[in-house]
Amino acid sequence: MTFESVVSEVRDRVVPQPEEREALERVVADLTARAEAAIEDLPVEADTRLVGSTARGTWLAGDRDIDLFVRFSPDLAREDLERYGLAVGHEVVPEGHEEFAEHPYVKGEYRGFDVDCVPCYAVDDAANIRSAVDRTPFHTAYLEGRIDSLADDVRLAKAFLGAVGAYGSDLRTKGFSGFLTELLVVEYGGFRELLEAAADWNPPIHLDPEDHGTKSFDDPLVVIDPTDPERNVAAVCSPHNVGRLIHYAREMLADPRIELFDPRDPDPLSANDIRDHVAGRGTAPVAVRFETPDIVEDQLYPQLDKSLSGIGGALERAGFAPLRSARFAEETAVLFVECGVARLPAVERHDGPPVGVRSHAEGFYDAYDDDESVTGPFIDDDGRYVVERPREARTPAELVESKLFEVSLGPHVESALEDDYDLLAGRDIGELAEEFGTELASYFDPRP
Amino acid sequence: MTFESVVSEVRDRVVPQPEEREALERVVADLTARAEAAIEDLPVEADTRLVGSTARGTWLAGDRDIDLFVRFSPDLAREDLERYGLAVGHEVVPEGHEEFAEHPYVKGEYRGFDVDCVPCYAVDDAANIRSAVDRTPFHTAYLEGRIDSLADDVRLAKAFLGAVGAYGSDLRTKGFSGFLTELLVVEYGGFRELLEAAADWNPPIHLDPEDHGTKSFDDPLVVIDPTDPERNVAAVCSPHNVGRLIHYAREMLADPRIELFDPRDPDPLSANDIRDHVAGRGTAPVAVRFETPDIVEDQLYPQLDKSLSGIGGALERAGFAPLRSARFAEETAVLFVECGVARLPAVERHDGPPVGVRSHAEGFYDAYDDDESVTGPFIDDDGRYVVERPREARTPAELVESKLFEVSLGPHVESALEDDYDLLAGRDIGELAEEFGTELASYFDPRP
Repeated sequence: MTFESVVSEVRDRVVPQPEEREALERVVADLTARAEAAIEDLPVEADTRLVGSTARGTWLAGDRDIDLFVRFSPDLAREDLERYGLAVGHEVVPEGHEEFAEHPYVKGEYRGFDVDCVPCYAVDDAANIRSAVDRTPFHTAYLEGRIDSLADDVRLAKAFLGAVGAYGSDLRTKGFSGFLTELLVVEYGGFRELLEAAADWNPPIHLDPEDHGTKSFDDPLVVIDPTDPERNVAAVCSPHNVGRLIHYAREMLADPRIELFDPRDPDPLSANDIRDHVAGRGTAPVAVRFETPDIVEDQLYPQLDKSLSGIGGALERAGFAPLRSARFAEETAVLFVECGVARLPAVERHDGPPVGVRSHAEGFYDAYDDDESVTGPFIDDDGRYVVERPREARTPAELVESKLFEVSLGPHVESALEDDYDLLAGRDIGELAEEFGTELASYFDPRP
Repeated sequence: MTFESVVSEVRDRVVPQPEEREALERVVADLTARAEAAIEDLPVEADTRLVGSTARGTWLAGDRDIDLFVRFSPDLAREDLERYGLAVGHEVVPEGHEEFAEHPYVKGEYRGFDVDCVPCYAVDDAANIRSAVDRTPFHTAYLEGRIDSLADDVRLAKAFLGAVGAYGSDLRTKGFSGFLTELLVVEYGGFRELLEAAADWNPPIHLDPEDHGTKSFDDPLVVIDPTDPERNVAAVCSPHNVGRLIHYAREMLADPRIELFDPRDPDPLSANDIRDHVAGRGTAPVAVRFETPDIVEDQLYPQLDKSLSGIGGALERAGFAPLRSARFAEETAVLFVECGVARLPAVERHDGPPVGVRSHAEGFYDAYDDDESVTGPFIDDDGRYVVERPREARTPAELVESKLFEVSLGPHVESALEDDYDLLAGRDIGELAEEFGTELASYFDPRP
């Protein structure tokens, strides 16, 4: 297939039909009218702004998300903004419930759409925002006029990034946000042009559409926010996901095919499949499983990542040579580390001071001289005292058991572990199939 | 016991009785006369010099070594020096045979003594020597007058260093030479004074009796040769042996006892003892055994050390986590490495280039994309391509088998291994008991 024939087929999937557009427009008009009516009942001024992909005409066919912002004067006290914002929100989305990002806001279903009604401050410049949501209307304003003819290319780019697992600026994915995707398509002038550029990226990549950046960043992809010279729109984008765009851009250009737009959906592994994979690889996996803390994903995943890194680091330092690791979360959460070493000796080397550092050296020697449990003290090739002492943890599971609460854990993960946890190793790893068979299928057959 | 009572008892052991001195003096007079007679038959001039501990009166009771040097004019061609030197040597030691250090010389037994008759150049200054042996007469001359009253203290120091395993500048021991021991006793003014100083040493230690040193050295102990400002007399002394002197000096001062002058002589381990030690430690030893190359020890041990370091390094890099290692040589030579990891996974991580380095990255990806034997390519957290490929060597023995001739080996060791070798691992390590039971007893119960 040619690039154009693939793109044409995908375009039919992702560009909404006129009926869908009209339905959306009707609902937006209805929501806006309800919001304006509610604002009239308030003792303060406010207006509304439709933001996000529905405002910019870049939503994917079938998406049902509408973001309606209610903008208040920057002179309004924060508690009043929150109170009035929620009042409007409940009028706009009668079935909605309150959620909390930087402000509380109302979220709920309305005539088949998922609606967020969010209060913000109508600041005069994106550099003066009070909280991150205040910036969103500026993004929408910036893209107005720049994106119209490229809306379908943006849809292709979002579908492509979504299929390869790199779309979404949530802290589980650490990928490309909608706004970032839009900026990139605008910057390069189209979907194909973005792929051609990305295929040649050698990070760090630095883009500054308004040529006004004032700070430097240590990220693999830097796209200076056109509405804020101090902000990298791609700050959350991981090296892995930047690499994914580069890789799949090359794939799509070299061998255009429709499957590159199909999200990966592997068959889940059974318990036996998992055990077979582990046996074939000859590794020593260990997993900590516990009840998933009841916090939003953008809190949960950073805590899981931090905890996984703590446990992996402890296993590495102890000599269990982790090969790879992963974290999964549904009802339970799992920190999974696949070790290269299943068993270490009964003894471990413990280095003391150089013999010449007299007071330390004598202290070390005297501490171990009569200790029947150690080998030595002897002097090594560098002139240090050394003993070989009994090792506390000879297996990855013993190590995790003994060090779990000494490593750096996310606070809610730590509380959950204090409540209860299971430690799985060896054949017991098969038990993870029930909840995470699909995740482990991807783990054991990883793609770029 | 007090320090003085211990030393007094040891002195009785190590100071020769008058009969022994007289017997030695008679033999030296005889050898010198024979050498002078032989010199008279030569067409060139020469004289003799008694050197070493017999010349300096610091030999240990029972030692039977006499070093007689024959000094020729520096104008003599090297081949003539060698020819005349051997001629004199054969006259002096009729039963002797030729050996080769820097020059050939004659070595043999004469009236119950081990005699070396060595030719050298009678240079006017130690700085102008042609070979290392030319320096020896200068050392003897330097110590004359300085050492007389300290001869017995030197004997104590030599006996002490010998008992703790740190005496001898041969390249197996890498310890303190006789001359170095003499200089240290002279420098500090006695045996006890040396111990008191050494107990406080914090290497690097720098001594320069003539205060004329012109070079800097990277050794733990630096004693500038009083006859050569550019030479460190202690260059061969290892950090381990310097540490030993420091350690045992403290022991002798804190708790004086006669056993510190008794060389360690452990009972040899049986094959079962060795297997029990390995099982108790839970380690994975591997040993390469081969016929000992027929070269002098000062060539053999550096080659064994280099080869052991090569093999240990390969095991370390492969992930087998060596704990300790050792080399032994009798009829056969053994390179022994005790690993911490007995078995590694069937797969090993193989890092490719960052995805962004396009031509390398594409080459790597294409090389592995259709390779059924690998997992991946995937992209890691740093944005690099990675594959997990089958590991060649899963055990220490497999690793040594596959890499033995890729590591840096001594040349004669390499030839011997090319002829034949045994690879021992697991329970087979017990086989080493037959030849190296004593060495392994020290290995498994190491002392400072």
